[in-house]
Amino acid sequence: MSSTNDQTHHSLIAGAPVAGTDGTTRAVDPARNAASGPEFSLLDNGQVAEATRAAADAFAGFRTVTPEARAAFLETAAERIEQSGAEIIANAMRETGLPEARLQGELARTANQLRLFAKVARAGDHHGVRIEPALPDRKPLPRPDLRQRTLPLGPVAVFGASNFPLAFSVAGGDTASALAAGCPVVVKAHNAHPATSLLVGQALSAAVADHGLPAGVFSLVYGRGNAIGQALVSDPRIKAVGFTGSRRGGTALMATAAARPEPIPVFAEMSSVNPVFVLPSAIAGGRDALADGFVTSLNGSAGQLCTAPGLLFVPEGSDGDDLVSRVTEKLSAAAGTTMLTPDICSARVDGEKTLASVDGVGELGRGGDGDGSNAPAPAVYTTDVETFAKSPELSDEVFGAVCLVVRYASAGQLPSVAAELEGQLTATVWIGAGSDTDTGSGADHQSARDLLEALELRAGRVLFNGWPTGVDVGDAMVHGGPYPATSDGRSTSVGAAAIERFLRPVVYQNVPEALLPAPVRGHNPWNLTRRVDGATVVAGEEENA
Amino acid sequence: MSSTNDQTHHSLIAGAPVAGTDGTTRAVDPARNAASGPEFSLLDNGQVAEATRAAADAFAGFRTVTPEARAAFLETAAERIEQSGAEIIANAMRETGLPEARLQGELARTANQLRLFAKVARAGDHHGVRIEPALPDRKPLPRPDLRQRTLPLGPVAVFGASNFPLAFSVAGGDTASALAAGCPVVVKAHNAHPATSLLVGQALSAAVADHGLPAGVFSLVYGRGNAIGQALVSDPRIKAVGFTGSRRGGTALMATAAARPEPIPVFAEMSSVNPVFVLPSAIAGGRDALADGFVTSLNGSAGQLCTAPGLLFVPEGSDGDDLVSRVTEKLSAAAGTTMLTPDICSARVDGEKTLASVDGVGELGRGGDGDGSNAPAPAVYTTDVETFAKSPELSDEVFGAVCLVVRYASAGQLPSVAAELEGQLTATVWIGAGSDTDTGSGADHQSARDLLEALELRAGRVLFNGWPTGVDVGDAMVHGGPYPATSDGRSTSVGAAAIERFLRPVVYQNVPEALLPAPVRGHNPWNLTRRVDGATVVAGEEENA
Repeated sequence: MSSTNDQTHHSLIAGAPVAGTDGTTRAVDPARNAASGPEFSLLDNGQVAEATRAAADAFAGFRTVTPEARAAFLETAAERIEQSGAEIIANAMRETGLPEARLQGELARTANQLRLFAKVARAGDHHGVRIEPALPDRKPLPRPDLRQRTLPLGPVAVFGASNFPLAFSVAGGDTASALAAGCPVVVKAHNAHPATSLLVGQALSAAVADHGLPAGVFSLVYGRGNAIGQALVSDPRIKAVGFTGSRRGGTALMATAAARPEPIPVFAEMSSVNPVFVLPSAIAGGRDALADGFVTSLNGSAGQLCTAPGLLFVPEGSDGDDLVSRVTEKLSAAAGTTMLTPDICSARVDGEKTLASVDGVGELGRGGDGDGSNAPAPAVYTTDVETFAKSPELSDEVFGAVCLVVRYASAGQLPSVAAELEGQLTATVWIGAGSDTDTGSGADHQSARDLLEALELRAGRVLFNGWPTGVDVGDAMVHGGPYPATSDGRSTSVGAAAIERFLRPVVYQNVPEALLPAPVRGHNPWNLTRRVDGATVVAGEEENA
Repeated sequence: MSSTNDQTHHSLIAGAPVAGTDGTTRAVDPARNAASGPEFSLLDNGQVAEATRAAADAFAGFRTVTPEARAAFLETAAERIEQSGAEIIANAMRETGLPEARLQGELARTANQLRLFAKVARAGDHHGVRIEPALPDRKPLPRPDLRQRTLPLGPVAVFGASNFPLAFSVAGGDTASALAAGCPVVVKAHNAHPATSLLVGQALSAAVADHGLPAGVFSLVYGRGNAIGQALVSDPRIKAVGFTGSRRGGTALMATAAARPEPIPVFAEMSSVNPVFVLPSAIAGGRDALADGFVTSLNGSAGQLCTAPGLLFVPEGSDGDDLVSRVTEKLSAAAGTTMLTPDICSARVDGEKTLASVDGVGELGRGGDGDGSNAPAPAVYTTDVETFAKSPELSDEVFGAVCLVVRYASAGQLPSVAAELEGQLTATVWIGAGSDTDTGSGADHQSARDLLEALELRAGRVLFNGWPTGVDVGDAMVHGGPYPATSDGRSTSVGAAAIERFLRPVVYQNVPEALLPAPVRGHNPWNLTRRVDGATVVAGEEENA
């Protein structure tokens, strides 16, 4: 991308710029509340079909490449993003107000995610192979030869998130996992960070070309937010949707997808207040560190993390009072930082006002406003558990550094409170040392057990003695959870298992060996771990099946 | 169940009869077109909540039992159904018109399915365990201890199918897989076979009691079809739906589920015409056997199988003409058999009329009407591939023994025809000997390869040189496929993988060992095959993780 502002930039469809005919947009530098950077032309809804057609055309060629070819492509994408790292980070700072260190970490995570999915593609467990060889002598009926594997769903539409301009955006987890599955991807750029998006999109497109893949494997489209989003999700060539954003945005896409002549799955990560339950044993000591950790988790990235703690349950009594006053004290020394966009900032300010207006809710403390525009002070409110239980609106997400401290009389109250919560991405329990031993003893052991049984039904991730912000990207992570944390809790958008969202099974019955696809052939040419007659046969250890 | 007709029978909620307040229904013996058997009281919509409440109450106790306890329960259910086998089959014959031999096979399959899911529950691969032990020294950040497993979704509503009164009904595959996952089940009895349903429901309830499980693990409800179905799917305690039936019925449930405050997944198996492509090499010889096999597959169970062949693609030319005349000849010797209900019969008769009225479609041949009511003659129509390609209505399912033979000029026409088909449960290719060798030679090899690449994208099962009816129930089967074959092609309703529909992942981060659930504990007390650091560790071969 040119670094001058003179040129108008365009959507990148199958590797080539395509000028939009629906006007232009520019980013807003949220720290200055002023338009910033070059213009980007916007596609009208009809032009979106150029990208989906290219994706559909690319599908046949892309889905059939070898695991090695797909993995090498993802690794090149990671390298090319790293090569453009300095320019990407400079633009992202200007467009999002996020600090350099955070964006450097996010860029590294983005590259690591692409490399994780390269590893996933190469290992090939996602092919999900299940083989039952023919049993011609079985009674009462012979068994045919049956070989199951997964196939990619087809072109996927991905909506970049405002709050992770790299790791949940153009080449983020949705894109990486869809590509690893063999699905071409059309990304709708988030209009809050258009230049960042283009630089990453150019890196991805270059990787497509480097490996001689069909150009339509990747496109990046700019358009007016809701309209182009609906057009993309309505397009019959699109077979699945990845989205990270607001509950309103996600549910609108879910409705559109469900109303199509051919309904398609929407994987939307939307809304979570990430309750944290501090058990009495956790604050017999160590309250200062706990207060520190909480304020850091709450106020990091201006509270604009999907997993930021929005509810903190603290026991009544002197230890609880002491914890709360330490939180208040540390908060007063903290300052707001620039939020991503003026709209997100004003929604957060309004959300705080609504929270403050509820009967029985009082302000506990707040920090200072940050420098520049759109940097409201972090704030903490408080109420009692009875008020909380009867006021469902107190569980609504306020996206930003706003938390409600709920004081409770007895840990026995917590499981039923937890059971009534909406679906969450995370739920956290703090318990004191002495309760976390193999003996199962300790003051809060039974409370923690009961709470865990309630929380595992309400969240995708349950953690102990830590803070929910910071999501490890690996084989075992779940970033998901029951509605409305996500549209459908049966999947994760972070970690290796995210690839499973974009696959479906097919079985081959008595298909001649010469016609079988590689994953299910008898001599296992891709060296996959497979199930044979219901038992797992690890790669390299099998007999021919 | 009493075998007299004097008594009114009722819904079976958590093991106890509950009289419905919305009138009564009786079965219709389709062979006589006359009401038959005892009365069954119908629940009004409000009464449905008794069953869902019992299911929700049973969830906590049921989801936490050991694999062995869940497996033993499913095995007892199989035994109890077999013990009532004679009475079940006698009632099913009267209520469905299906012949004894077919129902005996279906009863055996139903018991085998329950035993398969007992095996699945015992092996425990569905727990999907992924472990990443803590790496305190990892840079730049330590890795927490992460342990992923699956949890059951909660109470599941199952809608029994008309055409499989046992294997896809009260204790059918949906019920068996949901129970194996740990989900309580509320079955909506199909009003076409209420006595059959009650006998099977009593067997299941008895198995629940035998094992001391919470009574709400299973309920069977009778009600007016659409209304009670909508009430069940709207109930907030229901977390997923299994359905086998018509496209209209399935899409109505999908719409209701999507419109809930908390949307839930609907696994609906709906509509499929199961195209069969006969390549030229397949009819150089052996045409008589091919014609025989086709007529048997078409006319079995009066064509009322989800996988019955509704489209047969045959080459033009003398070999094709000969195959078609043999089909016509064998068909003329075949007779209709009693269909399941008068409504299904009249829909099939209307469907045939619609098919016959399309320009360019002609009747090829028909059999004789069967004895008794509701036994229309099997019929075959024909058209050319150009007419087929421009008439989408020719791909609509006619549920019954009606097939359209499509004549094509060249095998090269078939892949594009296949690519335009709606989603299917099955797609079949017949190819001649000499083309199915490892050398990949043979006249139709390339045609078959191209066709397979098109068909695997349109169907859940692709088979060669066989007939699609008859679904093997095991580890590798897929009974699913893209919409409208099912609501969402990412799962199967038959075979071991059906359990995955009712599960979602959750990850435990730094949870103390004493509080961890058994599947993810370090010493692997359930002896599960698990992933550790991304590598599969087969049960019995692991180090502690």
